[in-house]
Amino acid sequence: MPDIHQIARDIFEAQPFSQFLAAHLVSTGPNAAEIRIDITDKLKQQHGFVHGGVVSYLADNAITFAGGVALGGNALTSEYKINYVKPAIGSHLIARAEAKSVGKRQAVCLAEVYAVKDGVENLCAIAQGTVVRSDS
Amino acid sequence: MPDIHQIARDIFEAQPFSQFLAAHLVSTGPNAAEIRIDITDKLKQQHGFVHGGVVSYLADNAITFAGGVALGGNALTSEYKINYVKPAIGSHLIARAEAKSVGKRQAVCLAEVYAVKDGVENLCAIAQGTVVRSDS
Amino acid sequence: MPDIHQIARDIFEAQPFSQFLAAHLVSTGPNAAEIRIDITDKLKQQHGFVHGGVVSYLADNAITFAGGVALGGNALTSEYKINYVKPAIGSHLIARAEAKSVGKRQAVCLAEVYAVKDGVENLCAIAQGTVVRSDS
Amino acid sequence: MPDIHQIARDIFEAQPFSQFLAAHLVSTGPNAAEIRIDITDKLKQQHGFVHGGVVSYLADNAITFAGGVALGGNALTSEYKINYVKPAIGSHLIARAEAKSVGKRQAVCLAEVYAVKDGVENLCAIAQGTVVRSDS
Repeated sequence: MPDIHQIARDIFEAQPFSQFLAAHLVSTGPNAAEIRIDITDKLKQQHGFVHGGVVSYLADNAITFAGGVALGGNALTSEYKINYVKPAIGSHLIARAEAKSVGKRQAVCLAEVYAVKDGVENLCAIAQGTVVRSDS
Repeated sequence: MPDIHQIARDIFEAQPFSQFLAAHLVSTGPNAAEIRIDITDKLKQQHGFVHGGVVSYLADNAITFAGGVALGGNALTSEYKINYVKPAIGSHLIARAEAKSVGKRQAVCLAEVYAVKDGVENLCAIAQGTVVRSDS
Repeated sequence: MPDIHQIARDIFEAQPFSQFLAAHLVSTGPNAAEIRIDITDKLKQQHGFVHGGVVSYLADNAITFAGGVALGGNALTSEYKINYVKPAIGSHLIARAEAKSVGKRQAVCLAEVYAVKDGVENLCAIAQGTVVRSDS
Repeated sequence: MPDIHQIARDIFEAQPFSQFLAAHLVSTGPNAAEIRIDITDKLKQQHGFVHGGVVSYLADNAITFAGGVALGGNALTSEYKINYVKPAIGSHLIARAEAKSVGKRQAVCLAEVYAVKDGVENLCAIAQGTVVRSDS
C-alpha cells in the first residue's frame, strides 16, 4: 500500500501544469509541503519580477499538498487568499505550506512563498486556504 | 498621449508569463477587463481539469487590469481571494473583472472566471481583490 | 411545513448576538438576504465611525442567510473575506448578500455593506464567503 | 512622548464597540497583540456557540493592533480573511495576531482565535489581513 507521501509525489508528477512550469515537490511532512520553481524569463511580468500568477500557483499548490497529506488522500484547494508582500526576484521560489487545522473532510492551511536571491530567502507572499477531500 | 486602454494592452503584451500561457486581453472598459485563454493539455491538473493555478492567474490578472484602467495607470494586485466553484473544463476560459470601489490609490475588484464548453459559459471561480497604483 | 424564509427569520431571532446589536433581517429572497442595523454610539470605534467588527458581522451574517435560503436549510459561514472601502458613517447600515454559486452542500456568496447617510447609500465594504449546510 | 504600546492601549480604550463587547487588550509586543473577551450569553448565536461576528471582531481587531504597533502609529485593517475551524465554546476567547511582513505604510498580519474551555485553548478561527497607516 503506497504511503501518502508517495501518493502526493505521484499526483504532483501527474499535473501537466506543474510540469509546464517546471515545478518540483521538494518534500512533504505530516501536515506540510514544500514546492520549488526556478525563475526563468517566461515566468515574469512586465517589470522583470516573477508574475503573481506563478506565485499564486505555488501558494495554492503547496496548500493543496499540505492539506492532502494532512487529510490522507486526494484533495483540492477549494478557496484561498493571498497577499503579495514583496516583488519576487532571484534564482528560485520556494513555497512552504502547513495545515493548521485538520478535520475529517477539510484542512485550513497557511503558506509562505519566498524568493531566493544570492542564497537569501525573502518573503514575497502569504496565503491562507481551505483544502477538501476530493474523494469523499 | 496614449489612452489607458492602449496602455493596458501594451502592458499585457509585455508580460512574458501571459504570453507563455497564451492569454489574451480581450477588452477593457471604464472599470473592467476581460481575459481569455484557450484550454490546452499543458494547463491541466491530474484529473484533466484546468489547473487552479491557471484559473487563479486569470482572476488575478483580470483584477489587475480592471483596477488599472479604473485607477488610470500602472497598477498591481496587492491581494486577492478566490473560490473555485466548479471544475474548469471546455474549450477556453474567460475571466471578467470589474472595479466595484475606486479610490485615488487603490480599487477593490470582483472577478468571475467561466469555462466555456460547447458555447456555454459555466462559472468556475469567483474572486475579490485589491489593486494599487504601482507608480504612486 | 414552515418555508425557508420563515426558518431564516426564526433562526435570526434566536441569535442573541444579533439581538444585542439590534440587527434586523429585513428580507430574504431565493438566494439573497438583507440585514439592517441602526448606527448608535456603542457600535463605533475611536474616530466615530462604525467599528469594523459591526460591518464584518453584517457582511458575515448576510452571507450566512443568503447561503442558507439558497441551500434550503440550516447553514453557517465557514470562511469569508472582507474589504473595507469607506468609513461607515450615517444613520444605519444595510448589508445585502447574494449566493452566486449554489451546490448541494455549500454556496459561495457576495455581500455589500452600505452606510446610509441622509438617505444616500454609500458602499463601505465588500465581502465574499462560503456557506455550508450545518445539518448534513 | 508616549510609547506605541501606551498609544495602542489608549486607542483600544477609546473604542466604544470594544467596551460594549467587554473586550480587553491583554498585551502588545513588537509586532503582536492579544485580545481577550469573556464569553457571555449575549455574544452567542442560535446553537449556543459564540457568534462568528464576535470571533471576527477579535481577529480583525487583533490584526489592527498587531499591525499598528508594527507600523508605529494609528492604523486600521483594510481587509482580512477568516476561516472558522471549530465552534467557539468555553469561558473566554483569546485572539493573538502577529505582523508577518511590515512595510512603511502597511503590514500583513496573521491571527488565531482560541476558545478556552476548562483551561484548554482550542483553535476556533484563523485569519490573515492587511493593516494600513491611517495617518499617512
